[in-house]
Amino acid sequence: MIFQKGVLFVIHYPNGKLYQPSEPLSKPAKPVKKKELSFSNRGKTLEDEINETNTYYLNQQIAIIHKKPVPVQIVKVEYPSRSAAVIREAYFRTPSTTDYNGVWNGYYIDFEAKETESKTSFPLKNVHQHQVLHMKDVTNQKGIAFTIVKFSTLDRYFVVPFSVLHDAWRQMEKGGRKSIPLSIFETQTIEIRPGYNPRIDYLSAIKKLITNEE
Amino acid sequence: MIFQKGVLFVIHYPNGKLYQPSEPLSKPAKPVKKKELSFSNRGKTLEDEINETNTYYLNQQIAIIHKKPVPVQIVKVEYPSRSAAVIREAYFRTPSTTDYNGVWNGYYIDFEAKETESKTSFPLKNVHQHQVLHMKDVTNQKGIAFTIVKFSTLDRYFVVPFSVLHDAWRQMEKGGRKSIPLSIFETQTIEIRPGYNPRIDYLSAIKKLITNEE
Repeated sequence: MIFQKGVLFVIHYPNGKLYQPSEPLSKPAKPVKKKELSFSNRGKTLEDEINETNTYYLNQQIAIIHKKPVPVQIVKVEYPSRSAAVIREAYFRTPSTTDYNGVWNGYYIDFEAKETESKTSFPLKNVHQHQVLHMKDVTNQKGIAFTIVKFSTLDRYFVVPFSVLHDAWRQMEKGGRKSIPLSIFETQTIEIRPGYNPRIDYLSAIKKLITNEE
Repeated sequence: MIFQKGVLFVIHYPNGKLYQPSEPLSKPAKPVKKKELSFSNRGKTLEDEINETNTYYLNQQIAIIHKKPVPVQIVKVEYPSRSAAVIREAYFRTPSTTDYNGVWNGYYIDFEAKETESKTSFPLKNVHQHQVLHMKDVTNQKGIAFTIVKFSTLDRYFVVPFSVLHDAWRQMEKGGRKSIPLSIFETQTIEIRPGYNPRIDYLSAIKKLITNEE
């Protein structure tokens, strides 16, 4: 891991406080269920939330991180006159990397985002071997690899350092358990409280990890 | 720019020498034109050459650099029974980044690859504004951004630091020339001789750039 000493970080921590957006003025007052006050329950996927976060980071020039396009094998393209080319036959390919990567203040950032509806553990079948291998390669090249896991039923988000995922993966390969229990998330990863903007401030968690390693 | 002192680099310079592959034994001897001896003239695109290079870097664990998939807007997918999903309607989207990125020894690497048939200059119309903006953002985040330019008629390859492209781009925006003359490539960029494996050893050029900046 490379560390840059004396670097001024511009990331603000949510400090466990949820930002509350002001309600639109035109809406009539009505009893609001507790759940609706949460930011996590608007039908957004984790992917949407991370894309919003990355757009915020980009606009604020905090980091340049993008989702990679879905890899597609294109077989047939039509070129109708006076309109855009249309792909008429294509197939999904298996990605060889994780979904997100980019650069933040000199650090190479590389991660995968996963959701589970389980309330007690994260099933490792959500992770593919090529993703584990890719994150291992990235770590060996001194990049920062991690997974963002959302327990959607619990509305909880965790930044999982690759070392934690890697340990669980190796134990599974030796015949150990096929999931990571919530208690491991609570003790060995960094929980993120979702906010308004940035939505999922995962770089503040990464900053903590780096500071801890120093 | 972050520098890591005392790091052992495993990149080997081609030192201007072309590796010559041995001819297949079964082929009858015949007079060979000079051009056929070159590695550069086998109908490979620059993209093929860079993909080969990245595969070499990956297999040797020198760097983890991938081409991003072509971004596609998927509209209609069919799911035939007992076979793979088929995309039946999709459109090409404009990429918001460059084509290649990854990590090398703690450095974030980000580049675009461009070919020109011109013998005298590289037309800037080959570069899109969103690519220039992206490379500027990357540079501000202390990543290493550059362009690999192949003069295909001349069989010459250059690694162009972002600063050189950016200067030319700004001059064009002020009404200056719309291309970068070959003389600028010869004096302000790093030429790469194509080799056997790695085919286009652009990381050795990047190593030179970093050493020069130190």
